[in-house]
Amino acid sequence: MAVYTEVDPDDLAALIARYDIGTVRSCKGIAEGVENSNFLLETTNGRFILTLYEKRVRADELPFFVDLLGHLAAKGCPVPAMIRDRSGAAIQQISGRAACIIQFLPGISLTRPSAAQCEAAGAALARTHRALEDFAGARENNMGYRHWREIAKAAGDLDTVLPGLGAIVDAELDYLDAHWPSGLPSHVIHADLFPDNVLMLGDEVTGLIDFYFAASDYRAYDLAVTHASWTFSSDGKRCDPARAAALMRGYAREIALTGEEIAALPLLARGASLRFLLTRAHDWIHTPAGALVTRKDPSPFLARLRRYSAPDAMDLFAA
Amino acid sequence: MAVYTEVDPDDLAALIARYDIGTVRSCKGIAEGVENSNFLLETTNGRFILTLYEKRVRADELPFFVDLLGHLAAKGCPVPAMIRDRSGAAIQQISGRAACIIQFLPGISLTRPSAAQCEAAGAALARTHRALEDFAGARENNMGYRHWREIAKAAGDLDTVLPGLGAIVDAELDYLDAHWPSGLPSHVIHADLFPDNVLMLGDEVTGLIDFYFAASDYRAYDLAVTHASWTFSSDGKRCDPARAAALMRGYAREIALTGEEIAALPLLARGASLRFLLTRAHDWIHTPAGALVTRKDPSPFLARLRRYSAPDAMDLFAA
Repeated sequence: MAVYTEVDPDDLAALIARYDIGTVRSCKGIAEGVENSNFLLETTNGRFILTLYEKRVRADELPFFVDLLGHLAAKGCPVPAMIRDRSGAAIQQISGRAACIIQFLPGISLTRPSAAQCEAAGAALARTHRALEDFAGARENNMGYRHWREIAKAAGDLDTVLPGLGAIVDAELDYLDAHWPSGLPSHVIHADLFPDNVLMLGDEVTGLIDFYFAASDYRAYDLAVTHASWTFSSDGKRCDPARAAALMRGYAREIALTGEEIAALPLLARGASLRFLLTRAHDWIHTPAGALVTRKDPSPFLARLRRYSAPDAMDLFAA
Repeated sequence: MAVYTEVDPDDLAALIARYDIGTVRSCKGIAEGVENSNFLLETTNGRFILTLYEKRVRADELPFFVDLLGHLAAKGCPVPAMIRDRSGAAIQQISGRAACIIQFLPGISLTRPSAAQCEAAGAALARTHRALEDFAGARENNMGYRHWREIAKAAGDLDTVLPGLGAIVDAELDYLDAHWPSGLPSHVIHADLFPDNVLMLGDEVTGLIDFYFAASDYRAYDLAVTHASWTFSSDGKRCDPARAAALMRGYAREIALTGEEIAALPLLARGASLRFLLTRAHDWIHTPAGALVTRKDPSPFLARLRRYSAPDAMDLFAA
């Protein structure tokens, strides 16, 4: 849940006056996005999202996200493009924060995706990948493979989360270092396409949102993140074969992965599991119980890591 | 900020299917209302608020609120009426909670009302009072005068909030008991018309919301609550004469208070200040620092209590 910065109605009216989007009719803080303040803004012309960037998104990185979403929207991907004001500026200031006015997309964030919805998500991810092949922007994936040792170190004593976790993570980091593939097809990827970042109506994807972890990395790693977040039971112990096959089938409809990518998927999914295990463990250790932000239990990603490390893990990626 | 209960998309679709309001297009949790979960729901027919009642509102009291808002809406007051499904039912169940689908009203919650906005609020309050004179429902005001001793007792050691507060409250309770008026004009009142419960566009009131403290009490007490919450600096130390006069002027445009009501206003406003002082002190003592719900500082209402106790307090109610 987002922590909100208040927006003064007069400041809001002044901001909206810079745009050709009518006048304000309503503006309500919404519980969407991580560590940004988001408002559902209604004007006489339609609905928009007003995002105030709190701390996670660096203001100097905002132009990258403006370009990224503009590129995807221009190619017909269902992403929320940032609206430009009459002077062409997408990035504004309000309430002491950098802010953007963003397209409103219909749809509902999923909580328990069906196989049909996994297939649609896989296809939508692949279409996004195709659209990003010629995107000129680049961004270091500071939540990616090369950073996991430092994230593990910054998390603190992992054994306070789960006894023995520190040794498990050390061994996994060594294993990944020994086996991490090189030279797989890369471009900017979403890198965090959990079900709550996908809007759907029925089985149709109407929106891909929250691109603020988007960065340059292997496209197959993005598929592995999506696999890890869409196809498991909530405790992370069981991968549903029907949902997993549907996700792979949807992706394959749009993109034929190379043999090297397919062979790497279990390893990339181990990496994806480790990434969320580490960042959740970090937040678990550093967020006081009862704080405004809900801590997410890291252990379901340890369970996924184990599942992807089993000898038969490749079976989980059959379409 | 509300604490949200999740709504499953399939459960939501099933709920909406009971109504003649189209199909779901979007549903986003919003940061509005106290201790209820609220969602801004968009269907193919328009926008609505979906409210899930968490703990403050008793399910057996919901029919009172359905009737109250229906009565006010039928008389043209800008309140969010609860929508009835095809069978005529307004109260539903979803995610294990009682729930209602409610009219969406345009407008923005005020943070710093101007004098013109205070005047509009005073007039809107009075129009609501006129509309409620013939409302047949009744509800004990369990946050009202007869309950303040028990609220003070339940709060715990008031001196932990502010040294000496316990003795101040005891003396005030004795004073109010000795002077509380009887027989003033009564009906169901809002009882909590703070600026964040009023939606406006410019200087026009477009919505009066959050009626969940509405109960039977003196209409002049409702005006006193509104006076205390609209006309003071945020520290409660200074009443702005322009905003206070505007509020009284707006109210007087619609309702001529009796001489007894006018004479009682300073005392009723002391009572209103004590009510919010006590409930905020209760929450201050019982809410751990850093909990999901933000604690509100009680001391600005002690400052108001002092201001309304001054010999010249009647001046604050001149129109």
